Order: sequence, then structure tokens, then C-alpha cells
Amino acid sequence: MSKDEFWDRVTKINAGMLDANDGARLVPMSHHAERESNTLWFITAQGTDVVDAVEGGPVEASYIVADNGHGLHAHLKGALALSQDRAKLEELWGTVTDAWFDGGIDDPDVRLLSFTLESGEVWATPTSGIAFIFNVAKAKLTGDQPDMGEHFML
Amino acid sequence: MSKDEFWDRVTKINAGMLDANDGARLVPMSHHAERESNTLWFITAQGTDVVDAVEGGPVEASYIVADNGHGLHAHLKGALALSQDRAKLEELWGTVTDAWFDGGIDDPDVRLLSFTLESGEVWATPTSGIAFIFNVAKAKLTGDQPDMGEHFML
Repeated sequence: MSKDEFWDRVTKINAGMLDANDGARLVPMSHHAERESNTLWFITAQGTDVVDAVEGGPVEASYIVADNGHGLHAHLKGALALSQDRAKLEELWGTVTDAWFDGGIDDPDVRLLSFTLESGEVWATPTSGIAFIFNVAKAKLTGDQPDMGEHFML
Repeated sequence: MSKDEFWDRVTKINAGMLDANDGARLVPMSHHAERESNTLWFITAQGTDVVDAVEGGPVEASYIVADNGHGLHAHLKGALALSQDRAKLEELWGTVTDAWFDGGIDDPDVRLLSFTLESGEVWATPTSGIAFIFNVAKAKLTGDQPDMGEHFML
């Protein structure tokens, strides 16, 4: 799997699990992938655990993708931070987002978060319905690649 | 979301990310869900990190499901252990598994793992393509449920 393929797949995927507090709690979150800046963007609201975790400044966070339909499994690590980038917020804002905030984009509860990727492990996993992932080092058994799919460290 | 619905969805899902060593490394793994025993079963091989983690006895592990297509996000915790249940292995064994082990079900590298669920947090997330998850406590904004979907603690 190439880095290109990672970005292609992660762009098509709707959501993963965000861990902003060292594994204590993971929550589902939708991301907007932006390859140019090596960033996943999240829109969320004041008062959530995730915003509480970053109000004092950026934190090391993890984001886990396990999308079988798009064949991407990843354990991504990076810096999660509040962003004041109004232009970016406007770019990402849409009718679905708008429906969730009474005051629209100017709702005082709207928060934009940037997750800048630093490291991680990524697998392009099989998307066929009968494929299973056994975490077998097939290399050992037969000289082939592990069955978890093409794999790279971010 | 009911517990029934959780088991219905997790049964249809192919794979998640298994953490057998306190977040140090998550790996993709396919599961077989068995509601009657509150267990997810995994087939894997001797020599993998996951098997190394449990060779000294059962460990507390996490399993993360983030399947957008089936609308299930979950952070499950439980006891991960090697199992010697040959009847269960035979029940779960199939042609796909067989292709991965040179010696078939009698290959000395085959390992069966049980993951007995103890606790966790589960969301039935929207499966529509335009749905996004914002981690918004909509309860606060409008009196409705959080937008992350119906939710329960396992």
C-alpha cells in the first residue's frame, strides 16, 4: 500500500474512533481528510470530552480506522488541537453540519479540530466478503506477505 | 440501540482492531461473534504479537469496531485468552482459514483465542452516506439524543 492509496481510501471513509485521552474513552467521529497538510479535520461542539481534552493546548491523540467496506485499517497518532481557521471551517461546512448547530456556522458551540498525523500503522485490508484477517505472518509459513494486507508505517 | 441489535450488527461485521497490549499496538483481526457465550472468537497463528501477549495467561484487551457500512462503532473491553476448544475451532474453521495454514486445522501454528466481553461502549451509527458524526451533545442544543447514534454501555 502506498501513501497515495492511504489518502485515497481515508478520504472515502466517513468516520473512525477518536481517542483524545490516552485510551480512556474512544468516541466515533467523522473526519475530513486533507492530504496537502497531512491533517484530518473534525467538527465538534464545546462541552464534549474531546474538546475538554484539548482546551489547555494540543494533545497527543490516536485515531482508529477500521472500515471493512473500504478496506482500510489504521492506528494513527498525531497532535490534536483546536483550530481558529475560519476559512477552513467555511470550506468544510455543509448542510449536514448546519443541521446540527442551531446557530449554524456562527453557533458559539462550534469547534474545529485539527489532527496532524505524526506516525501510525496502516493496512490495506481485503474488501471481499469472504476475506478474513487472521494476523498470520504468512511470510513465515509460505514466504508471502502477512495476510492483513499491504502494510506500512506512516 | 439494544443489546440484540449490537449482536446482530457485530455478527455481520468482518473485522476490527485488536489491542492485546494496552494500546501499544493495534492490529486488524477478523472475529466470529457468539452471543450465547458473550464472546468474540479469533483465529490466528503462533508467533504473532497477539499470541505472545496471551501465552502467559489471559490478559485484559480491547477490541475496536468502526464499521461505517454496518453502522457500528464500539470500544469493547474483555479478557483475551488462548483456547484449547477443539470443537469450537472445528465449528469456525472454513475454506478461507484453511488456505492460510499449510497444515490445515492441524497445523501446529493455529491458535484459537476467546475474547469474553466485560464492558464497553457501543454506538449504532448512521449508515447513510451523507450522515456525519460530530460528537455533538444534541441533548444540550435541542433536547434530542447525541448525534453519534443510539448508544449504550455494555
